[in-house]
Amino acid sequence: MNDFEFFGDLQKAENFVGRIKDKNFLFSLVISYTETCEIPGITFAGADKESIKYTPPADAEYLYYGNCKTIDKIPMTPDGKPTPALLTKTALESSSIPHIVINAGSKVSPQLPFIQTGLSPGKNISVNPAMTDSQVAQAVNYGRIVGRTLASITDCLIIGESVPGGTTTALAVMKALGYKAQVSSSIPNNPVILKNQIASMALERIESDNPYGIIANVGDPMIPFVTGMLSSASEINPVLLAGGTQMAAVLAFASKIGFKKENTAIGTTCYISDDESANFKNLISEIADIPAIAVNPHLENSKFPGLRAFSEGFAKEGVGAGGTIIASLLKTKNDSSKYLDLAEQEYRRIFTSL
Amino acid sequence: MNDFEFFGDLQKAENFVGRIKDKNFLFSLVISYTETCEIPGITFAGADKESIKYTPPADAEYLYYGNCKTIDKIPMTPDGKPTPALLTKTALESSSIPHIVINAGSKVSPQLPFIQTGLSPGKNISVNPAMTDSQVAQAVNYGRIVGRTLASITDCLIIGESVPGGTTTALAVMKALGYKAQVSSSIPNNPVILKNQIASMALERIESDNPYGIIANVGDPMIPFVTGMLSSASEINPVLLAGGTQMAAVLAFASKIGFKKENTAIGTTCYISDDESANFKNLISEIADIPAIAVNPHLENSKFPGLRAFSEGFAKEGVGAGGTIIASLLKTKNDSSKYLDLAEQEYRRIFTSL
Repeated sequence: MNDFEFFGDLQKAENFVGRIKDKNFLFSLVISYTETCEIPGITFAGADKESIKYTPPADAEYLYYGNCKTIDKIPMTPDGKPTPALLTKTALESSSIPHIVINAGSKVSPQLPFIQTGLSPGKNISVNPAMTDSQVAQAVNYGRIVGRTLASITDCLIIGESVPGGTTTALAVMKALGYKAQVSSSIPNNPVILKNQIASMALERIESDNPYGIIANVGDPMIPFVTGMLSSASEINPVLLAGGTQMAAVLAFASKIGFKKENTAIGTTCYISDDESANFKNLISEIADIPAIAVNPHLENSKFPGLRAFSEGFAKEGVGAGGTIIASLLKTKNDSSKYLDLAEQEYRRIFTSL
Repeated sequence: MNDFEFFGDLQKAENFVGRIKDKNFLFSLVISYTETCEIPGITFAGADKESIKYTPPADAEYLYYGNCKTIDKIPMTPDGKPTPALLTKTALESSSIPHIVINAGSKVSPQLPFIQTGLSPGKNISVNPAMTDSQVAQAVNYGRIVGRTLASITDCLIIGESVPGGTTTALAVMKALGYKAQVSSSIPNNPVILKNQIASMALERIESDNPYGIIANVGDPMIPFVTGMLSSASEINPVLLAGGTQMAAVLAFASKIGFKKENTAIGTTCYISDDESANFKNLISEIADIPAIAVNPHLENSKFPGLRAFSEGFAKEGVGAGGTIIASLLKTKNDSSKYLDLAEQEYRRIFTSL
């Protein structure tokens, strides 16, 4: 527990952890796409522009198989830093937490069995509405069905995402819904100016405060889908939103359409909650009175530069890394130093098998 | 328990029921397709030839929504008798058993979130091999992934199917694997001669006793997929195969590639186990030493001819009806007369909402 930092209402956070710590977890990874990621300089989630669309399915394949089918190597930044899915995989395997992949608008399907929703990828919000209003409603409805089913078969549903460029749509959604949002990024010198420019261009299209219309205009398919999941799942069992800025956007939309706060928490890495360019702690408490948990996996102690990089501001979070590390530490009673050993083993396996 | 009949090893059947009766169930419905169903006279699973391919997705939609999206009405025989999914829906709803749909080769996708496998529909086995060997291997592998995941998040995994024409491919598979199989049917005057003719035509292509080659030649995609599910799931938790002849074919293939007998049972309706044209009881004991459970829902006592029809030899089983009724009676402690009340309510709802 020394590796955890609680914020928001501390008592609620401790209660939430107490309720889930000896329970069965299920991790659901929602993969999606926004064409916003094709704007140069917006994301490092992929080795180059052409490969960005393969990152979500490749993250999913790597979690299942330990390698990818859609691409040769696991997803990396242009200079070879691995996807945060490495952190997620280490967490899930060390704790035998089962997981399931949901395709909610990914441009490319993963080569494995996954929950199909038929949702389309989101458009580039700097030039077009992301979706139609009815696509948003469909995403919420399908999310509700999936959330109800998954929450019925586990004690605690963890929801993570892989959506390249998704912090920019998240920023736009939160601004449009009236929050003073700043965002994290997969890039250490967060391209804040560019993201804000894109969000501003998208916000110009907004003519009403109808939350469905706002998501349609400036969001991405993951946001309404996961919001639907949260709204039905939190009626049944505890839900841990695993992520940073993008899950904050989910929470912002969920606050408009309804969810059960008593069964909801957000879990992330300390690299998000300590990021000064993103006011994460204030943002969450501004959006909803739910507990927030940040885990410190002490990756700065790693002998591998590719793992230390997460602690230096690269990637920081994604693919549910923070939330699954929290669940794995709770379930296994490991501390972060044991977790780091396992992450290093996985890092070594990947980079020697390349 | 008076509504149950055990066969095979009675002690094992009682033990199996004792192990699962207070546990959490998850029902998985595997939908698929074989072009064999397009042979005239082979199935009644659809109002006419054109609508047969919509039956599996429509069954799935009806379970989720209470009505269908792909077609206007729920699937029926040409003279208006409802799909056995009505029995399944009543069982699942009365007992709050969650369920998930898996598309393993259906020609048409259901309009709901489902597990996608990317498997192709099976070819007409009277003229072509159903699949390639590598498609069979892929189906088994994907089945293993799905079985492992689902068995990890429930105490007892129930597996049902909706595959029009699937009893004919099941017959061919069992004959090819060396069993003295006869089969049930959705038609009371079971077109045994036609089915045997088709099976014989398919069997002529078989040149080796390699079980993968046999499934590729004369099977359908559901059989290897569910066999893969069974093989991994039964290593983790109890599995109830919910069906008659088609699940017997799964068991026949599983006996060749391996599964854990101690965690496996087959559950069906008495309309299958009492069917004299299909030697179901002998067949199961010939294939594998696993417990078998038949439930008598006493549908002959219904005031509705469409429900009495099941007891008169129409449909008899399908969409996991028998297995889900067994699970629902165990979970709710209802007897079959309470179940019949609920099935009649559902029947009334459907036919007054048309």
